Amino acid sequence: MTAEAVVEVTRGALVESLHRGHVAVVNAKHELLYSVGDPQKVIYARSSMKPLQAIPIVETGAADHYRFSDADLSLACASHNGEEQHTERVEAILDRTGLAIADLKCGTHNPKWEAAYRALIKSGEPLTEIYNNCSGKHSGMLATAKHMNESTADYYKLDHPVQQRILQVISELTEVQESKIVIGVDGCGVPVHGVPIENLALSFAKMANPSGLPERRRNAVERVTAAMMAEPEMVGGTDRFCTDFMRILNGRMFAKAGAEGVYCIGDKETGFGIALKVEDGNARATSAVAMEVLSQLGLLTDEQKEQLRDYHYPPLENARKEKIGELRPAFTLKEHIAASK
Amino acid sequence: MTAEAVVEVTRGALVESLHRGHVAVVNAKHELLYSVGDPQKVIYARSSMKPLQAIPIVETGAADHYRFSDADLSLACASHNGEEQHTERVEAILDRTGLAIADLKCGTHNPKWEAAYRALIKSGEPLTEIYNNCSGKHSGMLATAKHMNESTADYYKLDHPVQQRILQVISELTEVQESKIVIGVDGCGVPVHGVPIENLALSFAKMANPSGLPERRRNAVERVTAAMMAEPEMVGGTDRFCTDFMRILNGRMFAKAGAEGVYCIGDKETGFGIALKVEDGNARATSAVAMEVLSQLGLLTDEQKEQLRDYHYPPLENARKEKIGELRPAFTLKEHIAASK
Repeated sequence: MTAEAVVEVTRGALVESLHRGHVAVVNAKHELLYSVGDPQKVIYARSSMKPLQAIPIVETGAADHYRFSDADLSLACASHNGEEQHTERVEAILDRTGLAIADLKCGTHNPKWEAAYRALIKSGEPLTEIYNNCSGKHSGMLATAKHMNESTADYYKLDHPVQQRILQVISELTEVQESKIVIGVDGCGVPVHGVPIENLALSFAKMANPSGLPERRRNAVERVTAAMMAEPEMVGGTDRFCTDFMRILNGRMFAKAGAEGVYCIGDKETGFGIALKVEDGNARATSAVAMEVLSQLGLLTDEQKEQLRDYHYPPLENARKEKIGELRPAFTLKEHIAASK
Repeated sequence: MTAEAVVEVTRGALVESLHRGHVAVVNAKHELLYSVGDPQKVIYARSSMKPLQAIPIVETGAADHYRFSDADLSLACASHNGEEQHTERVEAILDRTGLAIADLKCGTHNPKWEAAYRALIKSGEPLTEIYNNCSGKHSGMLATAKHMNESTADYYKLDHPVQQRILQVISELTEVQESKIVIGVDGCGVPVHGVPIENLALSFAKMANPSGLPERRRNAVERVTAAMMAEPEMVGGTDRFCTDFMRILNGRMFAKAGAEGVYCIGDKETGFGIALKVEDGNARATSAVAMEVLSQLGLLTDEQKEQLRDYHYPPLENARKEKIGELRPAFTLKEHIAASK
């Protein structure tokens, strides 16, 4: 099976560009309910794995020891904008763990939020690791290492206990053997995990419906996902789909974007886990696909769809601020036998 | 015919993302020599049309009247970085035509070149139209309108003589009737032209080998393409493929990128015109496709390939400056019967 058309990019009368992709919708019993393209396609989950990567912060006791609030835990799951609300909180977490910005091994990139970037340039202050969208995740990894009396210098390496605990969580929640998980290097230097899209969706289904998990895991999962939904501003920030989506879904669904066109959602009410990959890796198409999947599944109210319309049909403007086209979903979910069970 | 895989995006052991696309290679006799995907696919040429849009600047006499140097004419074909070398030259052109920045109707966007953006923020000066990557093209359009005693207020509208002359040039060089050209609105507010990829390639073939054109057109084409090749820094700027490519091809080939994954090349030596479109619109894949097409056609020396290697196989780095993957071409040109003639 190959990728199917998922989003058309229009300009005037033409479809100017086309995004293809893959989608899997599963439940916690690992039944494939709906798909687009190839649900078995092995993809790197990228930052969509962050909620799973945050689980050991709770399970090791680091979250309690260092008094992680919901906002702190939500920030550990973030690909944040680098706004003040994010960078100040990362600093506070580092302070409480007795660590410093220099301990973050995530590297640097400009803050995603342009106003934050402009303020940084105007200030003349140096660009540090704290602005990296993954600095919350790295702070969580560091807190765990510190709490467990492990080295904090090489927490980003695959053989470090921090990464080994994460690998085990991912293996258990995706039901992919550790040896079968494809390991690459993520944008921030830590291991990145390749699994079939269906298994990635499964991990979100198990987080949405953790009733079948051991108690300790269930408690950690519920604390992490509840934190994301309670403090969605931490997961992304201003004008970000993850944040606006979770705010409007108001405790029902948690969601996380990943680089190269990945998006994952867990729905507490149905227990569905949804994972999608835009084949070409372009993040501009992910919210349109996510919104359309939920619409076709009948999981959104008309009011929610209206509030999130610009994520469902992202308008395209030119430099003169004229609307010259839009992104529009162009697929139909394939229903599998299991969906009727 | 559907789009074919053209570029794989690797990360570690996985192909993380995939770009599909279309390619056409034709000669000035409109013989299709090589293709990938669907050479009949109708696409907006976007900024790849700029060399054609510059032709009336010469043909109307505006270029002579306002003493356009090669660099000025090259800048009229540009999607420039907004570096000082570009913005100062646009100002000089506007000065000589008795016009001002406020006459540019291209709208504003941040300068592409980050150092220019940072300098602008630090200066506290306002972001004006002059930083728009199309400001050179708009200056050329304005100069033409002024020279022809036409309105300079609405030169960007389809029914203005400036745009009608451009439409005629495009129709003649692409061999697509004016009424068959799909018109949309470009990123900078002027008409954008939709034609089959093969016809877009034809226009570049005719510019590469203009011997069959009427003398006035031939002279204008030769002046425009020679200007681009003589002053490639104006067409893009620092670290831009168009610029580095034309510098290294040293007067043999001219080339121009267009938004949404378009790229066009004219080769003076063979008379080939090449046009390509990355289906999903991602510009990151265009140089890899362009370089691979030229390599398969045997049109580059080993030295040129070596000098342009990072455009052929663009490396991917993470925020820690580690190389974590690369883009690599993944297609074979299909040879058509005409190619053996």
